[in-house]
Amino acid sequence: MANKHEIEQFFRELQDEICTALETTDGKARFQEDLWTHHTGGGGRTRLIQDGAVIEKGGVNFSAVEGPAGEDLKRQLEIDFNADFFATGVSIVQHPNNPLMPIIHMNVRYFELSDGTYWFGGGIDLTPHYVDDAQAQWFHAQLKAVCDAHDPAFYTQYKKWADDYFYIKHREETRGIGGIFFDHLNEGSLNKSKDEIFAFVKAVGQTFAPIYTHLMKLNGEKPFTEAQKEWQYIRRGRYVEFNLVWDRGTKFGLSTGGRTESILMSLPKEARWFYNHQPEEGSEEALTLSKFKKGIDWV
Amino acid sequence: MANKHEIEQFFRELQDEICTALETTDGKARFQEDLWTHHTGGGGRTRLIQDGAVIEKGGVNFSAVEGPAGEDLKRQLEIDFNADFFATGVSIVQHPNNPLMPIIHMNVRYFELSDGTYWFGGGIDLTPHYVDDAQAQWFHAQLKAVCDAHDPAFYTQYKKWADDYFYIKHREETRGIGGIFFDHLNEGSLNKSKDEIFAFVKAVGQTFAPIYTHLMKLNGEKPFTEAQKEWQYIRRGRYVEFNLVWDRGTKFGLSTGGRTESILMSLPKEARWFYNHQPEEGSEEALTLSKFKKGIDWV
Repeated sequence: MANKHEIEQFFRELQDEICTALETTDGKARFQEDLWTHHTGGGGRTRLIQDGAVIEKGGVNFSAVEGPAGEDLKRQLEIDFNADFFATGVSIVQHPNNPLMPIIHMNVRYFELSDGTYWFGGGIDLTPHYVDDAQAQWFHAQLKAVCDAHDPAFYTQYKKWADDYFYIKHREETRGIGGIFFDHLNEGSLNKSKDEIFAFVKAVGQTFAPIYTHLMKLNGEKPFTEAQKEWQYIRRGRYVEFNLVWDRGTKFGLSTGGRTESILMSLPKEARWFYNHQPEEGSEEALTLSKFKKGIDWV
Repeated sequence: MANKHEIEQFFRELQDEICTALETTDGKARFQEDLWTHHTGGGGRTRLIQDGAVIEKGGVNFSAVEGPAGEDLKRQLEIDFNADFFATGVSIVQHPNNPLMPIIHMNVRYFELSDGTYWFGGGIDLTPHYVDDAQAQWFHAQLKAVCDAHDPAFYTQYKKWADDYFYIKHREETRGIGGIFFDHLNEGSLNKSKDEIFAFVKAVGQTFAPIYTHLMKLNGEKPFTEAQKEWQYIRRGRYVEFNLVWDRGTKFGLSTGGRTESILMSLPKEARWFYNHQPEEGSEEALTLSKFKKGIDWV
C-alpha cells in the first residue's frame, strides 16, 4: 500500500515532468525555483515561470510539510486530540499572455494524520477569457476519460463538485468552465483501496501536461485585439476575487502562516476593475459570461 | 436626541459635500451616480469618479438600508431574537493616478436595532504608495485635532485600533500609515450622550474633504517615473489583498448579498503582482515598506 514517502516522491517527480513540458512548449521562459522550509517541518519547491512566449506568469508548486497539528488545523479538521500531520501536493496556476488562451489550475494533494486517517484531494479546472465551445468540450472529454478509467461515477460527481466549488457567489458566476474537483477520498468515502485512489490521483496529475500544452499550441499565437486584452484583465480581476474571497485553500493558507508568495503565485501579473462593467449584448464577451454557469453539460 | 432620520440625512448631505469638493479639486472628472434598492428595504446612492486629472478611480457611497435582521446578521450580532435593523453610512475610497499621491479611505456609519440598541462606527486611513513623513505627520495631526476636540483619549485609542484593523496579516504589513478606526460607539461603551457621539462622527466625516483635497493639491501634479508607477501597481495589489482577504465589512457584504459593485468600488482600476517582489535595500520603496508597521507615533 502506497505510503507517504512514495506519494511525496510521485508528486515531486510530477512537478519536474510538468515544468519540463511547460518550458518545452513555451520555448522561451524558464522556471525559477525557490526552496523553503515550513516552521513545523518539511518544506517545498516553489517554481515560477514569467514572461514566456505563451505563459505570462505561472506557478508549479510542490510541497511536503509535517509537524504537530496546530489549533487552526485542529479546528478545520474538527478534531479535539493532538496529532501529527503530513501534507504533500502539487499546485499549479498558469496565466497566459494571450486572451484567447485559457487560465488553468490543477491541484493534487495527500493528507494524513498520525492516527492513521488519510485522504486524497485535487482537481483541474479551466478559466477561458473567451469560451471556445470545441475546446471546452475537448477539455471536459479529457477529464471524463481519466475519471471513467477509474470509476464510471467519478466524472459526473466531481464535475458537479467543481461547479459548486469554483463559484464566485457575489458575482453569481462560475470562475470559468469548471472541470473536476474532489476531496476527502479514502477507503471510507469510496469503495476502493488506497492504491486504487492513488492511481486515480496520479492519472489526474499526469493529464495536466498533455491537456495544457495542447491548448498552448492551439491558442498561444493567435492574434488578438486591445479590446480582448482589456477583457482578459477584467476576467483576471474575477480570478483574483475568487481566490482571495472564496477559495478555502488560499484563505486557510494565508491565515495559518503558509508561505504567502507560494500561495499567491495564483494571482495574475496584472488585473483590472472597472465599476459596473457590462459587456455589450450579443458580444463575444457576453456570450462567454452566459457560459459561466453551473450545470452546463460540456461533454 | 438624534434619530435615524437625522443621521441618515446628515450622511446624505455629507456625500453631496464630499463629491462637490472632490470634483472641484480634481477639475476634470465628474461623479456618475447609480441609485439602488436593498431587497429588504431602503437603498443607496453609489457615486463613482473615473479618469480624472488627479483621481483615477474613486467611490463615494451613501446607503440607508433596513428590514428584518437575517440569519447572517443575527449571527454576526450574536443575537438570538428577531429584530429589524437600520444601517446608514458613507464609504469612500479614492485611488489617484499619481503614485506620489496617497490612496484614502473613509467610512462613517450608524446602526440600530428595533430593540433600541444602536452604535456608531467609522474611521479614516491613508495609504501612500510612498510615505512622505511631513504629510504623514500632518495627516495624523488633523485626525488628532478632530479627536481631541471631542475626547482627549480618542486619538490614541482609535489610532491603535486602525493599526490593528488595517493589517495585512499574511504580509506582516499595515495597509498604509493608518489613521483612526472606531466601532460600537454608544452610551454603553463611552461616557457620552448619543448626540455627543454623533457630533464626533460628524466631525470625522467633515474632516475628510479638507484633508484629501489638500493632499490632492500638494501631490496631484508631481512628476513621477515609470518605476514609481510600477510600485504603485504593486502597492495597489496589497490594497486588493487587504480588502478581499481581511476587511470584515467587504467579506460580510459580499457573503450576505450586498451590492457587489458598490462594495468593490474600493478596488483600483489596475493592480499587479510579481512573484516575491522585494524592493532594493535602501531604496525609497524599501523605506516606505519599513513604515508600514503598527505603533509608529506619527504625531
